[in-house]
Amino acid sequence: MDVDTALLYTQRTMNQTIEIIKARRSIRSFSDRPVTEETLSVLKEATLRAPTAGNMALYSIIEVVDQQKKERLALLCDDQPMIAKAPIVWVFLADMQKWVNYFNESGAVRRAEEAGLALYRAPGLGDLHLCMQDAIIAAQNAVIAAEALGLGSCYIGDVIENFEEVRSLLNLAQYTIPATMLIFGYPAQAQHVKLTPRCPISSIFMTDEYQQPHLKEMSEAFAAHEEQRRRVRSLPYDNSGTLADYYYLRKHTSAFMKEMNRSTEVMFDWWVNG
Amino acid sequence: MDVDTALLYTQRTMNQTIEIIKARRSIRSFSDRPVTEETLSVLKEATLRAPTAGNMALYSIIEVVDQQKKERLALLCDDQPMIAKAPIVWVFLADMQKWVNYFNESGAVRRAEEAGLALYRAPGLGDLHLCMQDAIIAAQNAVIAAEALGLGSCYIGDVIENFEEVRSLLNLAQYTIPATMLIFGYPAQAQHVKLTPRCPISSIFMTDEYQQPHLKEMSEAFAAHEEQRRRVRSLPYDNSGTLADYYYLRKHTSAFMKEMNRSTEVMFDWWVNG
Repeated sequence: MDVDTALLYTQRTMNQTIEIIKARRSIRSFSDRPVTEETLSVLKEATLRAPTAGNMALYSIIEVVDQQKKERLALLCDDQPMIAKAPIVWVFLADMQKWVNYFNESGAVRRAEEAGLALYRAPGLGDLHLCMQDAIIAAQNAVIAAEALGLGSCYIGDVIENFEEVRSLLNLAQYTIPATMLIFGYPAQAQHVKLTPRCPISSIFMTDEYQQPHLKEMSEAFAAHEEQRRRVRSLPYDNSGTLADYYYLRKHTSAFMKEMNRSTEVMFDWWVNG
Repeated sequence: MDVDTALLYTQRTMNQTIEIIKARRSIRSFSDRPVTEETLSVLKEATLRAPTAGNMALYSIIEVVDQQKKERLALLCDDQPMIAKAPIVWVFLADMQKWVNYFNESGAVRRAEEAGLALYRAPGLGDLHLCMQDAIIAAQNAVIAAEALGLGSCYIGDVIENFEEVRSLLNLAQYTIPATMLIFGYPAQAQHVKLTPRCPISSIFMTDEYQQPHLKEMSEAFAAHEEQRRRVRSLPYDNSGTLADYYYLRKHTSAFMKEMNRSTEVMFDWWVNG
């Protein structure tokens, strides 16, 4: 390939990837079309190309294929039946356990101690943070790769609820906790649905320091969130309330957010204290 | 566009995006070529298309342009001068602060309490986890969009060190903590460097439950990590040690990992307790 061809190729490639990213929306309803082993393998290989801290791959991915487990997981994730119906279900784990095993079983811990070089350090919240970064970076790599393969996807943040039961269901070890979860499949039908709105650039990007968004900025930033604004009508207020009321009642003070907070506290404590 | 054209277009698009993902490597040295406002704007718009929980955009991005701040940040992030030299420096914040402001200043908290619908709930670790997911998902969206625009990128996990100073430098509020950081720029020269190896699919993906990798599995999973294996020779062991020794001494028990753990503890505590 000569330089001009390469440049042309790159430019074409560029735009198409940007278009894929810009056209992406969450898919919650899947067709019966099976995902072939070949496609799955391309998806997995692309996922693993995600950058990872120190190239340590501080994550693992549990592919849930057992139908009973899928159904149990659907219940544990705020009762969302679409999870049990999804052709592909991946739980992304922040994983320091494999390195703890490797350090100990290889003799590295003992050698360092005998040579007076280092004392054992149990993983803490810093490791947890770094492992979470690795796992979630890999997840979004998977989302875009899937999109490029024609597969729809949806994040299931609810996987951080009911930690004790999720832990038991997935046989988690101390230094493995759910970072996020994804479901994939071919979209149920050609879905020509409007893209969900996003906040304007100026409301997310700030220069040199954090500038607290207040009432005016937030009202402007979320002015386009029509779908959520329509739901405002269902609030039990005389004058129907505002977008802030909707998010406050239906999200922030909801039972599932309370559970996420309880569950994550147990999760982080388990990582640190066992 | 008719169906065949659309299909052809999709298939071509697919492969090119997958190729971009598979060819991506971290870039730590940048050319002087400036990033135009137009390119920057395309990058930002693509970044914001990242999926976010409940479409709440639970993150903010601080673009550090002030050269003195860049240099200070470079020092705080384990003294990496490449940060100060990078044309674009973005700190991704998990951000619940803007919603706390919105809930309070809009009157949503008061209305809910007066109507007997909900009592105020301060953000906890569950919110932190969910906000981190949002921020890191957006970061990897930015990485792939950048790649498609010819821009190289590198994650700086070290942004979670020295929290007290980073907080002061970036004027962080209680419910805003660093989730990750990225630097971008055009690569210093056409870099035909070998891709860093990744673990085999079978060592990252597990079926239905977590299966602890032990010595044998870890040795096989990281057998291809040549670059790190070459560094093993620099260890102060007679027989030069193993890959596990390298990672244990140079990463796990390093000063920067200890600092990450101390710093993240302060960070999470601040979010919960102020």
